[in-house]
Amino acid sequence: MLFLLWFKISQPHNLDQRGLMSVWRREAEAALPAVKTGKVKALYKVSGRREVVAVVDVESHEELDELLEGLPIVRELGHSVTVEVHAIHPYENFYELTKKLSS
Amino acid sequence: MLFLLWFKISQPHNLDQRGLMSVWRREAEAALPAVKTGKVKALYKVSGRREVVAVVDVESHEELDELLEGLPIVRELGHSVTVEVHAIHPYENFYELTKKLSS
Amino acid sequence: MLFLLWFKISQPHNLDQRGLMSVWRREAEAALPAVKTGKVKALYKVSGRREVVAVVDVESHEELDELLEGLPIVRELGHSVTVEVHAIHPYENFYELTKKLSS
Amino acid sequence: MLFLLWFKISQPHNLDQRGLMSVWRREAEAALPAVKTGKVKALYKVSGRREVVAVVDVESHEELDELLEGLPIVRELGHSVTVEVHAIHPYENFYELTKKLSS
Amino acid sequence: MLFLLWFKISQPHNLDQRGLMSVWRREAEAALPAVKTGKVKALYKVSGRREVVAVVDVESHEELDELLEGLPIVRELGHSVTVEVHAIHPYENFYELTKKLSS
Amino acid sequence: MLFLLWFKISQPHNLDQRGLMSVWRREAEAALPAVKTGKVKALYKVSGRREVVAVVDVESHEELDELLEGLPIVRELGHSVTVEVHAIHPYENFYELTKKLSS
Amino acid sequence: MLFLLWFKISQPHNLDQRGLMSVWRREAEAALPAVKTGKVKALYKVSGRREVVAVVDVESHEELDELLEGLPIVRELGHSVTVEVHAIHPYENFYELTKKLSS
Amino acid sequence: MLFLLWFKISQPHNLDQRGLMSVWRREAEAALPAVKTGKVKALYKVSGRREVVAVVDVESHEELDELLEGLPIVRELGHSVTVEVHAIHPYENFYELTKKLSS
Amino acid sequence: MLFLLWFKISQPHNLDQRGLMSVWRREAEAALPAVKTGKVKALYKVSGRREVVAVVDVESHEELDELLEGLPIVRELGHSVTVEVHAIHPYENFYELTKKLSS
Amino acid sequence: MLFLLWFKISQPHNLDQRGLMSVWRREAEAALPAVKTGKVKALYKVSGRREVVAVVDVESHEELDELLEGLPIVRELGHSVTVEVHAIHPYENFYELTKKLSS
Repeated sequence: MLFLLWFKISQPHNLDQRGLMSVWRREAEAALPAVKTGKVKALYKVSGRREVVAVVDVESHEELDELLEGLPIVRELGHSVTVEVHAIHPYENFYELTKKLSS
Repeated sequence: MLFLLWFKISQPHNLDQRGLMSVWRREAEAALPAVKTGKVKALYKVSGRREVVAVVDVESHEELDELLEGLPIVRELGHSVTVEVHAIHPYENFYELTKKLSS
Repeated sequence: MLFLLWFKISQPHNLDQRGLMSVWRREAEAALPAVKTGKVKALYKVSGRREVVAVVDVESHEELDELLEGLPIVRELGHSVTVEVHAIHPYENFYELTKKLSS
Repeated sequence: MLFLLWFKISQPHNLDQRGLMSVWRREAEAALPAVKTGKVKALYKVSGRREVVAVVDVESHEELDELLEGLPIVRELGHSVTVEVHAIHPYENFYELTKKLSS
Repeated sequence: MLFLLWFKISQPHNLDQRGLMSVWRREAEAALPAVKTGKVKALYKVSGRREVVAVVDVESHEELDELLEGLPIVRELGHSVTVEVHAIHPYENFYELTKKLSS
Repeated sequence: MLFLLWFKISQPHNLDQRGLMSVWRREAEAALPAVKTGKVKALYKVSGRREVVAVVDVESHEELDELLEGLPIVRELGHSVTVEVHAIHPYENFYELTKKLSS
Repeated sequence: MLFLLWFKISQPHNLDQRGLMSVWRREAEAALPAVKTGKVKALYKVSGRREVVAVVDVESHEELDELLEGLPIVRELGHSVTVEVHAIHPYENFYELTKKLSS
Repeated sequence: MLFLLWFKISQPHNLDQRGLMSVWRREAEAALPAVKTGKVKALYKVSGRREVVAVVDVESHEELDELLEGLPIVRELGHSVTVEVHAIHPYENFYELTKKLSS
Repeated sequence: MLFLLWFKISQPHNLDQRGLMSVWRREAEAALPAVKTGKVKALYKVSGRREVVAVVDVESHEELDELLEGLPIVRELGHSVTVEVHAIHPYENFYELTKKLSS
Repeated sequence: MLFLLWFKISQPHNLDQRGLMSVWRREAEAALPAVKTGKVKALYKVSGRREVVAVVDVESHEELDELLEGLPIVRELGHSVTVEVHAIHPYENFYELTKKLSS
């Protein structure tokens, strides 16, 4: 089942830009391979903001927590990351429901 | 260039569920083919909420307005739709920037 | 998988208290049997507010939409109901994760 | 009488993920037995967020404060925990009221 | 047990000031005797705003709903009244807890 | 003239629960006698939250500042206390106005 | 005692600009003389927004309600006006308090 | 041209009440003479809150920045002061516009 | 003096898309010539949202109200337009202030 | 393609006004030449607030991130700057759309 995750990262006061980008590079190096395996369905940077949008495919709600707490950016900067969680599903499946409800 | 669009649809007081779903079915019938042409890169229904998330690929900021004002749901229910607009780009491109800034 | 749903119901201007309570009675008559079948795990009224909290067990994210659009209160008063959706899981499962992450 | 409590936990800047999870493990070890005694009626982790939802059964409004200030996570991380408090009651009791008000 | 209730009343577009004040007069005529019986412990008008603060003493969370749905202003203008609900208790009781926790 | 004051207290990161409760105990020891003198008309703890509601009777708007800046919790933890201020008056006086405006 | 009142006026859907300005003209014709009598200490239009700021001198909190409900714009457009109420006092009086608290 | 400025001052964690009031006293000693010169048209303390309202008369939008950055409280506590800025003008001038638009 | 104005336009329920765009066309036909005269310094459509950003050069705060109330979109759809007002000035002028304050 | 960027700068607690203004001067010295090259189309200081509005012309969404992370104020004070990003386009282009949609 699919979840859209919206990450918002704030830079801690005791970390400079270079340090933040080092953590973020490690994060990207962990996340990008997961796109290839299909675990991560989509992965975007929000332009001009320190935010990331991901669509992930998990087996259970427990796995969502494991996945997030295992991310380098949460392990290293957990106090500075917030995540919004949205359950989603493919629009074509919802289209079937609109057909049923409008008939 | 990519934009993530977040649609929030409210049901007008003078339209019942069946009427709303009829408009939404027409909307889906217009949107789903655009996924095949590549104009729409991703398209999800937010579960349990009357919201839709789309990733679209447009040539210009003008095209974004044309695209939105041309949607059946905006043409028929424009007073009841709000759209949040977020410029995005592929995470692998941002990865290149983290490498440059952390070195 | 479990979802906590938080319903907020507003009374339309053209419906009096008695009419609202009639719809709500039909809603309760549909919802309470689902508690017995185990589809609804918990069901509470928020005291002093026109809000309801439910914990539901669904098979998929598509089922969440079907379930909600099928409720009498959404069918009859869809313009006056908002729902917040939260993916949840039993705390004992999370306890396992805290053990792993703190060791 | 029943209260739904929604805990939101933020990670302090001087505590790493492992330290946070140690406190949370102790918290869970105190809370889970209370589910067995019936003091805690329901207990869920919000997936993907550092939030917990509990339904508790207390004798008085004073007991609510004692219960909360006695939790390990409040004793150790009180500056980093916020709690939302909602008085609730079983939906079947509210159903009786809808019958009375709609007749 | 005590609850502080904060009422916010908005004037419907199809009711003039005189009509609103007629409903409010009936509301006051129902509420003021309850002060004498001790059911309502305190009752204030917020100056310059169409808001009322009440401290009520109820036996159960169910009674809170009955009390509110029985008020003239809710019966007649339920679409235009919102209520915030706060569980409270006498400060001297909390003082006992501060003594215990600070020793 | 009466004011309802709503205090919200946050625990500073460098103060533990015991320290916070020591300040709060001193605060209560200053506030409770003022209830007896009539300066404080009502005084409640919000259950489950670190918040206090007070109804005070002051001679002037200047006195309100003096009163607040003289409280132990403001003197010792002023950076961690916010206060909302609401001018109020007895509901029976407002009842007179509703009679005049509805006639 | 002084209060700063911040009026926010929204144009009802069934009233055109000319109708709104007619009510507002009557409002101004009632308010401007009160500046001369000293009842209103200051009176400003917020530029570019349909908002007004007033500083009024009242004898009691009851008088604040009477004053507001007696305004033409509240009598005629009460459903479309919101008022924020702030108790204030002259800064030179507060200066005396800063001297006392900083010595 | 006139601006209404609303200052909100928060007490830094490393400054006690006496220190805060010392800065504020210096601020008042700079601000009160400006009332006499007419540069400051009105100056109020918000009762019970650490907020100040000022009406200032400036020659240009550049002067507004100079004025604010030159205040003792901004020079010494700039990280702890926020300012809301509202362009205003005398209500009698707006009255002329209501006459024109309603005729 | 310069102001940045941010218009947010909502479509009324009794006006279809074509009707809204007719008003907006008249608005544009009034606004675009003002760019040529220098009264409007910059004028942009926010892509994907029914919002417009304008930078205007006015002589007084009174003129700001006259200008806004004279716009076709405010005259015809005043109930459906909100405007945010921000006093601004050229950045090079602020640069002079940073030089003075940092030396 | 054009973006309107709205910068909000907060002063860190360990930096005084002079230090903040030094960084800001360097920022201005980097930004003002970009106005001449046409990369920055407009650049304003918000009066009385530590905020800046810029209109920039970028080739891609990736460039937006590069541009922002390369600014002196983000490099030196990244933890204290937030940026709002709005895609925009010239109003005359939108005028063409209003003509098409209203005919």
